[in-house]
Amino acid sequence: HRIRDYGVEIGVLKPGPLNAITDVPGVKVGHFSHIKGGNIRTGATAIFPHDGNLIQEKVPAAIYVGNGFGKLGGYTQVKELGNLETPIILTNTLSVPTAVNAVIGYTLAQPGNETVRSVNAVVGETNDGYLNDIRLRDLSEEQVLYAIKAADTGRVREGNVGAGTGTVCFGFKGGIGTSSRILPEKAGGYTVGVLVQSNFGGVLQVAGVEVGKKLGHYSDSFKYAPDGSCMIVVMTDAPLNARNLERLAKRAMLGLARTGGIASNGSGDYVIAVSTAEECRIPYQSDDLVQTVPTLRNQAMTPLFLAVVEATEEAILNSLFAAENMTGHKGRTVEALPKEKVLQMLKEAGKIK
Amino acid sequence: HRIRDYGVEIGVLKPGPLNAITDVPGVKVGHFSHIKGGNIRTGATAIFPHDGNLIQEKVPAAIYVGNGFGKLGGYTQVKELGNLETPIILTNTLSVPTAVNAVIGYTLAQPGNETVRSVNAVVGETNDGYLNDIRLRDLSEEQVLYAIKAADTGRVREGNVGAGTGTVCFGFKGGIGTSSRILPEKAGGYTVGVLVQSNFGGVLQVAGVEVGKKLGHYSDSFKYAPDGSCMIVVMTDAPLNARNLERLAKRAMLGLARTGGIASNGSGDYVIAVSTAEECRIPYQSDDLVQTVPTLRNQAMTPLFLAVVEATEEAILNSLFAAENMTGHKGRTVEALPKEKVLQMLKEAGKIK
Amino acid sequence: HRIRDYGVEIGVLKPGPLNAITDVPGVKVGHFSHIKGGNIRTGATAIFPHDGNLIQEKVPAAIYVGNGFGKLGGYTQVKELGNLETPIILTNTLSVPTAVNAVIGYTLAQPGNETVRSVNAVVGETNDGYLNDIRLRDLSEEQVLYAIKAADTGRVREGNVGAGTGTVCFGFKGGIGTSSRILPEKAGGYTVGVLVQSNFGGVLQVAGVEVGKKLGHYSDSFKYAPDGSCMIVVMTDAPLNARNLERLAKRAMLGLARTGGIASNGSGDYVIAVSTAEECRIPYQSDDLVQTVPTLRNQAMTPLFLAVVEATEEAILNSLFAAENMTGHKGRTVEALPKEKVLQMLKEAGKIK
Amino acid sequence: HRIRDYGVEIGVLKPGPLNAITDVPGVKVGHFSHIKGGNIRTGATAIFPHDGNLIQEKVPAAIYVGNGFGKLGGYTQVKELGNLETPIILTNTLSVPTAVNAVIGYTLAQPGNETVRSVNAVVGETNDGYLNDIRLRDLSEEQVLYAIKAADTGRVREGNVGAGTGTVCFGFKGGIGTSSRILPEKAGGYTVGVLVQSNFGGVLQVAGVEVGKKLGHYSDSFKYAPDGSCMIVVMTDAPLNARNLERLAKRAMLGLARTGGIASNGSGDYVIAVSTAEECRIPYQSDDLVQTVPTLRNQAMTPLFLAVVEATEEAILNSLFAAENMTGHKGRTVEALPKEKVLQMLKEAGKIK
Repeated sequence: HRIRDYGVEIGVLKPGPLNAITDVPGVKVGHFSHIKGGNIRTGATAIFPHDGNLIQEKVPAAIYVGNGFGKLGGYTQVKELGNLETPIILTNTLSVPTAVNAVIGYTLAQPGNETVRSVNAVVGETNDGYLNDIRLRDLSEEQVLYAIKAADTGRVREGNVGAGTGTVCFGFKGGIGTSSRILPEKAGGYTVGVLVQSNFGGVLQVAGVEVGKKLGHYSDSFKYAPDGSCMIVVMTDAPLNARNLERLAKRAMLGLARTGGIASNGSGDYVIAVSTAEECRIPYQSDDLVQTVPTLRNQAMTPLFLAVVEATEEAILNSLFAAENMTGHKGRTVEALPKEKVLQMLKEAGKIK
Repeated sequence: HRIRDYGVEIGVLKPGPLNAITDVPGVKVGHFSHIKGGNIRTGATAIFPHDGNLIQEKVPAAIYVGNGFGKLGGYTQVKELGNLETPIILTNTLSVPTAVNAVIGYTLAQPGNETVRSVNAVVGETNDGYLNDIRLRDLSEEQVLYAIKAADTGRVREGNVGAGTGTVCFGFKGGIGTSSRILPEKAGGYTVGVLVQSNFGGVLQVAGVEVGKKLGHYSDSFKYAPDGSCMIVVMTDAPLNARNLERLAKRAMLGLARTGGIASNGSGDYVIAVSTAEECRIPYQSDDLVQTVPTLRNQAMTPLFLAVVEATEEAILNSLFAAENMTGHKGRTVEALPKEKVLQMLKEAGKIK
Repeated sequence: HRIRDYGVEIGVLKPGPLNAITDVPGVKVGHFSHIKGGNIRTGATAIFPHDGNLIQEKVPAAIYVGNGFGKLGGYTQVKELGNLETPIILTNTLSVPTAVNAVIGYTLAQPGNETVRSVNAVVGETNDGYLNDIRLRDLSEEQVLYAIKAADTGRVREGNVGAGTGTVCFGFKGGIGTSSRILPEKAGGYTVGVLVQSNFGGVLQVAGVEVGKKLGHYSDSFKYAPDGSCMIVVMTDAPLNARNLERLAKRAMLGLARTGGIASNGSGDYVIAVSTAEECRIPYQSDDLVQTVPTLRNQAMTPLFLAVVEATEEAILNSLFAAENMTGHKGRTVEALPKEKVLQMLKEAGKIK
Repeated sequence: HRIRDYGVEIGVLKPGPLNAITDVPGVKVGHFSHIKGGNIRTGATAIFPHDGNLIQEKVPAAIYVGNGFGKLGGYTQVKELGNLETPIILTNTLSVPTAVNAVIGYTLAQPGNETVRSVNAVVGETNDGYLNDIRLRDLSEEQVLYAIKAADTGRVREGNVGAGTGTVCFGFKGGIGTSSRILPEKAGGYTVGVLVQSNFGGVLQVAGVEVGKKLGHYSDSFKYAPDGSCMIVVMTDAPLNARNLERLAKRAMLGLARTGGIASNGSGDYVIAVSTAEECRIPYQSDDLVQTVPTLRNQAMTPLFLAVVEATEEAILNSLFAAENMTGHKGRTVEALPKEKVLQMLKEAGKIK
């Protein structure tokens, strides 16, 4: 059950049919979960903005750095050129180069890319080193390619899956979560989808209820480990340029804040925002110097901001509700959110009737 | 009564004795409220990091731009040099140049500044044009100087005062609000103080309770006016350099998010963060090429981040609790937050025993 | 005579008919030179991207900060929204607020702007406090408005005029300078125009000839005064979005570098870049959420980069060639570039046949 | 012979004894040149700021992005935390992940790093795909480790070596180049060293002489390939914090400009600046919340700016003077700079007596 299944509504906008990033037309997600022996608890998650050859049909994109204690690859080129030319991969901190290599190999091998000799792979990560023996770097290019090939539209698996296999959030088992919002017609009717890899700390709030405080479940030294991070991927079919995508990305951190996140010193919090609008695609080569593109006006951005705030909050909560107890490296166990207790608190606060 | 007087605790850290920005030793605040006839509802608020000659003893500072639809003066020099050399002034949008002129005049005239010929005045603003006939630009340099001279330590007036005289927040009367947090000794025992000029929109949450949604009191067109903004001033006695002050400033927006703010397109949301630590002051002139300064390590920043998130949330709520009904320009009235109803909601949610 | 009149060609691209920023169709420049008594040597220069109501028909714009020890107004809103809504004013450091007030007054008073209550004036400055008694702030709003009203297409006066009346560059009299480049047809045939207010230091190079070094005319303490700065305005009719305008602006600093500038600690070097392309104008109000605009592709930017580098170098040299000896505040005299000597050096280096 | 050996002096400051980045005490450089068969022309270059365990004794650092069409790894963490914790590796575009993996392996394996589970490898690149069959990604982790182990103080090999084995600059063979400057005692007596991997385009100027124009040797389409880039590494023993290191890094682009570089659209121009000052090292762990560090004052930065401009210009010229003809992938040959002709031009311009 996801949090909304219990009758808890986050925010005032409506989610899409799947309440997932895949509500944005064409978006695909694939996971590879790598659970091996007692000590490997990691994986990879791939997100595609469309089904075509991405380097030949780039998409407008921006990355916002919530806190930069992270190893995300691809930042500066996205910032400079305003576009994304590969699938987005999420994985663990020390497997970023492996995933970049996988994406480069995937891209070079695609039909039509025979002369490509520059690839800007966007690979994000969080550090799952508490449950996963991360120093072994036991994730192969083939396993990353599996996530790429597994990518599909439709329902998205959440919790202990893909890049979320070994992550920890607010001291509970975190993982992958997703949510979406659809704007009212007068605001454009666009869809905004969010997917998170939750691995961060703070003082947990669920729908405004101070769960972390009530449970006494937060770091009393306020020294969150350097492992704490959140990767956030935002997709929308609204026709946005890179400047407004960066503004949109920035708001996702406000959604994280509503769950009690504080972007601690050790966190690598990045938000990657992409417009999937077909008419905004950027061809690799063109005889034309000029491309004419529809662009949402600044004034129309506010509803999208609200949408991404709400969807990010709910995606994080979904990651916590979906994740299950996990035992891993050195026999450590991280327990799932105690849902019974939390639901009881939500009832007492009037969030569930 | 402030929100904490009703037994509502925001967050897990303790506030200082005054629960105000003036809990940071040496910090002074002064207001000038300009209420004239039926149409002028504006003012100025001045904040000083210390009592000395600021251009001769600059303080480490940073400004974070939450959303830049605003007219704040002084940004680029603070960014480049990492310091503040004047008091901070808050006022209305179209009175920024008047306030800058006042600060320049004030600085040039101070004893010891006879040869100064460059002054970087930091002046922030929000747009109070709904209640205030802002186009008249009816605020004088003298009135700004009044706020400067009125600056004092001790209790800070909140609500419809100074730069908050005519502001509107979540559709209710906004204004000035303040709060503080003190870190545990093992985290350094530092104080973090926040002062806000609240003038923004979103879907109001009070201590996690969805007040805006319950009251149906939010823009159903999601078209927040360009007037919506929040100025946030953060002071701390922790010895921070400009880089870590910018990181601290960034977290204040997470506190705003917890009140339901979304940094709408039309908002000018700026956070100015300053270290008041005496040993970090930067002399105007020095024979030494090198200055040796204590600097908080990156790893010690997390508790400060939590402090600024909590204090910002509470400062905004304090601004709403202190503000009172105001009638102004064109006979428009903005009502205060309906405290009775809100307190009832807080009780029902278990936030007040 | 301008440097090109002597047969010196800067770079490989061709200038426009006037070799001035006004080669870009529609661009207008106006000056007010304020020379009063023995001690006032300052002024204002106004640059318009088009002839219409700028706040109603905004233009795409970006500002690049070469070094931010300056008081430029309007930066953060241009960065956030990607547009310019007023004429650009250049003046002296302490007269920025006066100029902002003038621009606000001008904008509020324009027909059609009766309900406007937010104006983002872009006002740049350099510090002419060596020749000008800057602390007197003896420039009035009316004088700034004179520059605004004087703005016209056609030839641009250079040297000791407008905002360049009292400036100093490489230890010689600086001032206003301008230049332009026209791209080859296959690169789009666009025009790039540059106007500078030169007031900075370094080790002067003229067309690659080490004039400063040969003359021994540079600071042997390498302690350039905080007064040293360069304001650079770039206009182009190429259809650029804000992201590519920022990239274009960034290259102007490379042109400054070719004259021997080093962006010293005390400099406030800002580049404001604007696209004047009619089809890119941004209406203040619109019923459409989406605007369809032609945008130059990233791949077509390189020739524009070359153009702005060359035009900036030549504009700075033009400011030095046009400026004349000036005596001002405290009887100080700054001499013009010794053109005879410099031309002799250029001849010896084979730059002049 | 390097350019200075012919009597050409770049700038007004004096170089260090080796006129190399290794004039900065403790700095080490190592190369691995990978020339294999007819088609592999690439390599790796490693630069160390000191001899210790870098992750245990981090150094203050900053990265400036001149133009971000590149794949440099490690940017965001350096920006956020202000430090460098690994050696810097330069290589080719598609071998970045291999080099990152090599650096991670090297770091994890160092004595004292047994519990390290996060490593921010800083790896830069340019695209040598014209002479090197880059799609083969034929550089191994072992080969990168060879460059790391080969790192040493003393003279630095230039030209077709290490990461410069296959690069092209201004249409001539580029490669590795280095230079240094020593400040006068009254400016602190610090050393600034620069190392470049030159692979970019523009219109070549040598010591201000328009070599590219005279030879007609520049792209008449002004369409520089996406392969064009310059990696610049700056080391100094001046005690600088990250903010001032970023400012220093920014000036290196002004040095590039003096050689005729324009930071074309396709370039990935990055400057990595590091302070090697011992007292500024940042311990991985510390019981103290506060570290007291000497920091150069803003006012003392200008001579360092001049130094980095001059050293960057000369390092690029050194790379061109040292590089030799190279034949590679698909039988393509890139010729070295025609030194005889260039020296003749320099004589005619009076640069050589």
